[in-house]
Amino acid sequence: MKNLLLASTSTLYKGAYLEYLMTALKELYSEAETICFVPYARPGGISFDEYTKNVSEAFQQIDKNVNGIHTFEDPEEAIVTAEALFVGGGNTFVLLNSLYQLNLLPLLRDRIFEGLPYLGTSAGSNLCGITMQTTNDMPIVYPPSFKTLGAVPFNINPHYLDPPTHSEHMGETRETRIREFHTYHNIPVVGLREGSWLRVKDEDITLHGVPKARIFEQGKAAVEIESGTKIDYL
Amino acid sequence: MKNLLLASTSTLYKGAYLEYLMTALKELYSEAETICFVPYARPGGISFDEYTKNVSEAFQQIDKNVNGIHTFEDPEEAIVTAEALFVGGGNTFVLLNSLYQLNLLPLLRDRIFEGLPYLGTSAGSNLCGITMQTTNDMPIVYPPSFKTLGAVPFNINPHYLDPPTHSEHMGETRETRIREFHTYHNIPVVGLREGSWLRVKDEDITLHGVPKARIFEQGKAAVEIESGTKIDYL
Repeated sequence: MKNLLLASTSTLYKGAYLEYLMTALKELYSEAETICFVPYARPGGISFDEYTKNVSEAFQQIDKNVNGIHTFEDPEEAIVTAEALFVGGGNTFVLLNSLYQLNLLPLLRDRIFEGLPYLGTSAGSNLCGITMQTTNDMPIVYPPSFKTLGAVPFNINPHYLDPPTHSEHMGETRETRIREFHTYHNIPVVGLREGSWLRVKDEDITLHGVPKARIFEQGKAAVEIESGTKIDYL
Repeated sequence: MKNLLLASTSTLYKGAYLEYLMTALKELYSEAETICFVPYARPGGISFDEYTKNVSEAFQQIDKNVNGIHTFEDPEEAIVTAEALFVGGGNTFVLLNSLYQLNLLPLLRDRIFEGLPYLGTSAGSNLCGITMQTTNDMPIVYPPSFKTLGAVPFNINPHYLDPPTHSEHMGETRETRIREFHTYHNIPVVGLREGSWLRVKDEDITLHGVPKARIFEQGKAAVEIESGTKIDYL
């Protein structure tokens, strides 16, 4: 029993925060009045309160209350009592390190496998893969491990980016970086372009949104999949 | 006593490997016949032999021999007996992890501080900062620490990239990522654009090459510096 929405990004170009996902979020959160928000990834170093305020404002559109997990004296209790969860984007190293420090990963995993509605954007989506080793973020803190929740049987690369045309930049492309990952690991990687998300219901995993996604498996050519494609085979 | 050349990249757009640096390398390596090459960063997962072959071919232009450190039974001996060093680019996590596994960092640091001529490109330049936490690479292996050699009193961000104009991509810009680093650390960061390098002679550190570099300090506005500028004040 799983009920996840894992998005590449929270915000599209010229869009408002979570705007393009609202219809899908209405469905995901249909039985919840209040969403427990995990602000630990701190995009741009924003404070937990400020981040939670932004999220809360966005969810007013679909009449949901938002409680920041940091406002609970005991963050375990916040997860145990949550009707629904949202883990926001930011820096994946910072997010994972906080969750390890607070020892919240086992509990989070249990609740996700029980069917707690879960939204992840960017770092929050990365968190549901097997490891965070296909993040794009800088390693600004040192987490005790790169192991993540394993709520899906692959890794995610959010904000997946095609090699720019006409670029004179010689830094590695995203595809090259994922290929390097596959010289050490055989975990499949789903490159989620901005505007795409995965909807996980039990063992059913389907791509949604406008862009295609790009699937990388060790020793195989990369494959493009269309919105609507099921990827439970990974 | 230090004698380092720390480059943003090994290769410019439409250029050959190390081509743009050859005049500077002739000077750096003027007293060495043979260069000890460290291929551990394995760009694109290339083998140590193949990587060393590419480097060896490039250095034929200035009549230097190249020995891969991996061909020595004892890599410590390779460093102790080296006349000059080159640590090539690739994945910084992989590079640093290998150096920790082989316990080579203390010896490498000693020899660098004794004045051993050292060339770093990309990951090899990152290695000379205080930590590797401003790398652009994916965390495809888990090193025992992010601490690097501290041969310069700041961190380096190689392949520094300005925010693309007209982009609709919403992933973090390089500057945003470096700002996030500064929410946790007060180590200055030098953003080295492709085509730039730092020349370190004793405590004297000077920017070379065509592009400007961008200096980030915690709590200050970023500063652009021209080629020829000394940055020993950092």
